[in-house]
Amino acid sequence: MEYKDWRHIFKLDPAKPIGADALEKICESGTDAIIIGGSDNVTLDNVIDLLMRIRRYAVPVALEVSTIESITPGFDYYFIPSVLNSSETKWVKDLHHAATKEFGEVMNWDEIIPEGYCILNPDCKAAKLTNAVNPSSEEDIIAYAEMVEYLFKFPVFYMEYSGMYGNVETVKKVKNRLKNTKLFYGGGIQTEEHARQMATYADTIIVGNQVYDNLAEALKTVQAVKTLSKQ
Amino acid sequence: MEYKDWRHIFKLDPAKPIGADALEKICESGTDAIIIGGSDNVTLDNVIDLLMRIRRYAVPVALEVSTIESITPGFDYYFIPSVLNSSETKWVKDLHHAATKEFGEVMNWDEIIPEGYCILNPDCKAAKLTNAVNPSSEEDIIAYAEMVEYLFKFPVFYMEYSGMYGNVETVKKVKNRLKNTKLFYGGGIQTEEHARQMATYADTIIVGNQVYDNLAEALKTVQAVKTLSKQ
Repeated sequence: MEYKDWRHIFKLDPAKPIGADALEKICESGTDAIIIGGSDNVTLDNVIDLLMRIRRYAVPVALEVSTIESITPGFDYYFIPSVLNSSETKWVKDLHHAATKEFGEVMNWDEIIPEGYCILNPDCKAAKLTNAVNPSSEEDIIAYAEMVEYLFKFPVFYMEYSGMYGNVETVKKVKNRLKNTKLFYGGGIQTEEHARQMATYADTIIVGNQVYDNLAEALKTVQAVKTLSKQ
Repeated sequence: MEYKDWRHIFKLDPAKPIGADALEKICESGTDAIIIGGSDNVTLDNVIDLLMRIRRYAVPVALEVSTIESITPGFDYYFIPSVLNSSETKWVKDLHHAATKEFGEVMNWDEIIPEGYCILNPDCKAAKLTNAVNPSSEEDIIAYAEMVEYLFKFPVFYMEYSGMYGNVETVKKVKNRLKNTKLFYGGGIQTEEHARQMATYADTIIVGNQVYDNLAEALKTVQAVKTLSKQ
């Protein structure tokens, strides 16, 4: 299945330990894909280690690139965030330029998926790391989405509430403005009900922390999405 | 003719006076299009004034947007520069976000053409205005081009030597890396020979200052490009 058709993703942090049993349950849960990504202590070693463990299963696996040092071959996709509300060019295009310079000639660009990333939890690590400016209104968020759809033409607009459950109405409004660009939603999904609510509007939901906090609940979000038809 | 097929463009600065005779010669020169754009003292008034004067002729006319205040309906295209080597997010995506927020609902997005802009004359006004970082090597410039082609997927990569004649070999190398993205070249084209050299590799050349410095020479660049087949 192509990434554009993914409805449910588990995001695993390579810096957090996860046992073999838990990883098996995640990989065989029926989720559409696994993303490896994190903000802190992401290294080439822990990325490769987790990749190899996941590769024992059939589930597709993508790397969300946060540092150039952790890029390694072997993933199905490489998601490249461009942080739309960062106040530093580093997170918008400078890392991207450096990575293109270093890897441009050997890259298979079909596997490289740019994400227009909008960080919506001002207290999360990613917001502090990238000096993100919190959107002051829903209109600000919608304008980021339209900028991605029409100007930057990235295939993915990612609403990242990282650790905080977001506003369903805002997600719905953003979805209504997007046509070609897919809407990814991540942040604070802890229950089946959360998953159903957000996946009603978002094309794809990403479940992260709950994997580590309450795996049984996290696993239930897979079926919650599968039994849902998008509105 | 669609903008992607343009080979020769005259760029006129709305803040610089131009007589009726000169404007007629420019508009009826056979050039493919006129771009209105500048760095200093661009106002809604002088943009509209120049647009109306050019609209007496059949030549297509585009606005290169440098300030939100100068945006007005009536152009065939709106080129939106994203300055790839600026060190301020303002020139990469913040003005774009503000414009999308203000005009998003009424915009005809088919007329909006994002340009990946690379400023290559560190002494020009645009470089100082946008706090541009001068690429330290040819590889840096090529990486910007590939970032535009593959990641940002802008339809235009613009090598802007503003007032300075650029390096033909670099233009050739950049062109060889681009597939879908069109290569615009601007800067220091004063003669037929300059025009021929750059248009041999660039998809489109832009002649600006020479219109004001030596109109007769500037006009000759049109035929120089028309009689050339691209390599």
